[in-house]
Amino acid sequence: MPILLDTTKAPVLQRLLEETDTSGLTWTIEPGGAQVPPLAETRVAGIANLERAGPQELSFVSNPRYQAQLVDARAAAVLVTPEVAQYYRQALSEAGRSQQALALVVCNSPYLLFARIGQWFEQQLYPAPPGSIHPSAVVAPGARVDGSAHIGPLAVIEEGVDIGPRARIGAGCFIGAGCRIGADSVLHPRVTLYRGVSMGARCVILSGAVIGDDGFGFAPDPSRAKGAWTKIPQFGGVRIGDDVEVGANTTIDRGALDDTVIGNGVKIDNQIMIGHNCRIGDHTAMAACVGIAGSTTIGERCSIGGAAMIGGHLTIGDDVFISAATPVHSNIDKPGQYTGFFPMTEHGQWERNAVAVRHLATMAKRIKALEKK
Amino acid sequence: MPILLDTTKAPVLQRLLEETDTSGLTWTIEPGGAQVPPLAETRVAGIANLERAGPQELSFVSNPRYQAQLVDARAAAVLVTPEVAQYYRQALSEAGRSQQALALVVCNSPYLLFARIGQWFEQQLYPAPPGSIHPSAVVAPGARVDGSAHIGPLAVIEEGVDIGPRARIGAGCFIGAGCRIGADSVLHPRVTLYRGVSMGARCVILSGAVIGDDGFGFAPDPSRAKGAWTKIPQFGGVRIGDDVEVGANTTIDRGALDDTVIGNGVKIDNQIMIGHNCRIGDHTAMAACVGIAGSTTIGERCSIGGAAMIGGHLTIGDDVFISAATPVHSNIDKPGQYTGFFPMTEHGQWERNAVAVRHLATMAKRIKALEKK
Amino acid sequence: MPILLDTTKAPVLQRLLEETDTSGLTWTIEPGGAQVPPLAETRVAGIANLERAGPQELSFVSNPRYQAQLVDARAAAVLVTPEVAQYYRQALSEAGRSQQALALVVCNSPYLLFARIGQWFEQQLYPAPPGSIHPSAVVAPGARVDGSAHIGPLAVIEEGVDIGPRARIGAGCFIGAGCRIGADSVLHPRVTLYRGVSMGARCVILSGAVIGDDGFGFAPDPSRAKGAWTKIPQFGGVRIGDDVEVGANTTIDRGALDDTVIGNGVKIDNQIMIGHNCRIGDHTAMAACVGIAGSTTIGERCSIGGAAMIGGHLTIGDDVFISAATPVHSNIDKPGQYTGFFPMTEHGQWERNAVAVRHLATMAKRIKALEKK
Repeated sequence: MPILLDTTKAPVLQRLLEETDTSGLTWTIEPGGAQVPPLAETRVAGIANLERAGPQELSFVSNPRYQAQLVDARAAAVLVTPEVAQYYRQALSEAGRSQQALALVVCNSPYLLFARIGQWFEQQLYPAPPGSIHPSAVVAPGARVDGSAHIGPLAVIEEGVDIGPRARIGAGCFIGAGCRIGADSVLHPRVTLYRGVSMGARCVILSGAVIGDDGFGFAPDPSRAKGAWTKIPQFGGVRIGDDVEVGANTTIDRGALDDTVIGNGVKIDNQIMIGHNCRIGDHTAMAACVGIAGSTTIGERCSIGGAAMIGGHLTIGDDVFISAATPVHSNIDKPGQYTGFFPMTEHGQWERNAVAVRHLATMAKRIKALEKK
Repeated sequence: MPILLDTTKAPVLQRLLEETDTSGLTWTIEPGGAQVPPLAETRVAGIANLERAGPQELSFVSNPRYQAQLVDARAAAVLVTPEVAQYYRQALSEAGRSQQALALVVCNSPYLLFARIGQWFEQQLYPAPPGSIHPSAVVAPGARVDGSAHIGPLAVIEEGVDIGPRARIGAGCFIGAGCRIGADSVLHPRVTLYRGVSMGARCVILSGAVIGDDGFGFAPDPSRAKGAWTKIPQFGGVRIGDDVEVGANTTIDRGALDDTVIGNGVKIDNQIMIGHNCRIGDHTAMAACVGIAGSTTIGERCSIGGAAMIGGHLTIGDDVFISAATPVHSNIDKPGQYTGFFPMTEHGQWERNAVAVRHLATMAKRIKALEKK
Repeated sequence: MPILLDTTKAPVLQRLLEETDTSGLTWTIEPGGAQVPPLAETRVAGIANLERAGPQELSFVSNPRYQAQLVDARAAAVLVTPEVAQYYRQALSEAGRSQQALALVVCNSPYLLFARIGQWFEQQLYPAPPGSIHPSAVVAPGARVDGSAHIGPLAVIEEGVDIGPRARIGAGCFIGAGCRIGADSVLHPRVTLYRGVSMGARCVILSGAVIGDDGFGFAPDPSRAKGAWTKIPQFGGVRIGDDVEVGANTTIDRGALDDTVIGNGVKIDNQIMIGHNCRIGDHTAMAACVGIAGSTTIGERCSIGGAAMIGGHLTIGDDVFISAATPVHSNIDKPGQYTGFFPMTEHGQWERNAVAVRHLATMAKRIKALEKK
């Protein structure tokens, strides 16, 4: 579904780029040719994948794998690297088309520029609501809500909560006593924060996320029954930095005595479970369905693939890449990629191999015996 | 817990079957004998497992494995295949019991007939509420709610939503701007639909499901900090066909630019995660805890076992069966069953085998060397 | 974050222990020496990890691994085993410090005592709210709510619900028709109970948990379309014993015809999925992200590691320990630990080993052939 803005308001390309946050980026516009309107009249009504982008839509090529699509693209303009621009000019020339058809925005990092332009479009399409508290929300008298913050319908805000400037609390959220939510942070509908969770500025929390629920702590209590457990109250909090994203239905436990800590810029996908007293380093990203057991520390700039499962009380260093579906049961102190899952095969073959797996230690011995012969 | 209807209202067997949707089914009644009331008086007050079904309850045998229980069954009547009916008559005869005790409903597909009769009972026990909007719901003035639709307490319906005939929105649901919900679809309590999700007719969405949340997309943004990320806004939607079921606490991401698409008749269990821009073919079913990373296309009529994890940007063909707990990291273009998990053993044995696993490549070389000797 | 009570109210050590439930425990106080206030004046303002505990905080050493920290600890008092107390005295003596610095509470089970003292602190810090129903809650006229129970804002309580003495229903909970909630049970905000769920006394249900949602049951219905499914209504309930904890965003399906049953004292962490008709024995504990497919029975006092995945229609006996990340596809009738996951390695090594895994059955044959030579 391409994005559609009111094109009468859409700026021409130059103005769009000037209104976009291009900090850290360099860019130049190369006007398109006869097949598209001259640059001054190029109207950008939306952004779309290159395959589908029409003459009022902007697109991008970041991966050279897709650059061949440029020759037939119909977009208003395309964000490209200098290398892709060079490829495009040559491809046109080889095809005997002297005139460059597309307008190009040549940029050192077209993917990042594309993200920033997307953010500009998002602000036009879905502008932040004005500061207000929906009359159906239940806000404790002692909560402090900044005048520019927005509280959606049927949200519950308990005592001692502090909600910063321009923060937005979605419909049906529950914000427990004493939580602190930084400026420009956005909680989508139906997020739950238990008491005493703090988060910095510009965080985004998706629906169904639960932050600050009790960690899973029990002491054996044989005085009650054979095998019985008694609950260890969880007094720690959760401290979340700036620019953190937490996915839908993800859960982050509060600490037992100390806090669970999520660093700045950490990106956490959906249905992730982070146990009590974990510490996640700045800018680490983890894909959906990851589980991290309690008291594990993960370094900065790590990437954790989907459904990887990390045991408790471990230490993972900086710049570590865990492959998807990999269980981690030991510390990792060296940067690099780590993997561990059983490769999939056709089922019959798996069955034959699985029999052998059960005898691997014996196989190793038998090989040794053969070598001694 | 057997179902209990007011038996004074329960039809006799013949009438029950006439009131049930038996399209696609053939069935005949074989009256029971002396031990049960004559057919005209057989009252069916409920349905139950054969083991527990009493003289006013209906049951079924679909799997021949359970047919031996028929001889001592006390049910009002039992749905069976012609083959099981034949077995039953012979077993009675061998036991010297000439008179057929149970009433049988002989059917080409007793399991399907059982499901349909169950649906009839469900309608009697839990009739759909009349069209109405609970006064505590927060419904935007521009939302269109069909007069026969039901909106539960404390639901939030945003602008531009369209809710079809006889649809039911449970308590505490959040329906984002512009969502479309087809006729007879049912959202259980506390479902979240982000803006712009559309679903067809007769869908069932279980509690805690989140549909249309942002896909997980970030561009590296080293201008902010080493390893930092910037969010790529997610503009696509989610399009869901007819007759789809989505389980409790499942999450389905909206697309980045194009839509995420769920085909007709797809059945999705609890705690499943479907990434942005996935496309799931008609009638594919997936058991709980499955994860599918972004931009993966799955064919029609696939079965995906519980906790299988499917990587991103893959293509799985039609009629593929992925075993439970299997990670999928490559395309599958041939129908069949595919498996990949490490077989469980007693822990000590696993430890010994795990050591060998780490040396498998070396073992392979050593075998080759021995063969060359 | 250490806990801070109003120290003017905090009892001295002796009184604190007398106010704590110490049933099943034996304990004696050994007064501290010169470096801390004399026992009669020891004020306990909170509890903290030994490393961080200050002179008004209580701490504990349960694991001898941490006993070396005692020598430099600054806590008001420390709970220890007799063995750790003995170690401490000797360590002080060896260090030439004749005077015992810390007050010790010598106990047969310091970890359990610590949990019980924590519960005492929790009651002081977060006392149960008085019996009341928030005016924004939607309570059906036929629901029975004990006068001492607390119903939070925006909760929905349907017809026929029975809520026992001192039970607490958090903000935004949905309690379906006919549910029964025992005395002193606590539902955190935004829990969903479908109709007909029953739970005993002293249960704790964390936010986002969904209990009693439809099990995943469908019959093939080729009359509608190739590969189509029709829903099998789920009529069973969920019965939960006393002292059960259910984690955040966990889902427990209702039974198809019979009930799903969770025994007394069962502890279920976050994001766990329990299929329809499962039966979980008393005092079994399972860590986060576990999945249990339908109709599986698990014994008493089992421990199930995080992300273990247990197939359907299985029987697991008492006192079984399943390791984390282990898939279980067969019955287990003998107590013990069971494991099955592919060990993680550096990625390149994994790749080489994975190639060999696909040829394991062949490797086994080649070894046999070599042995015959």
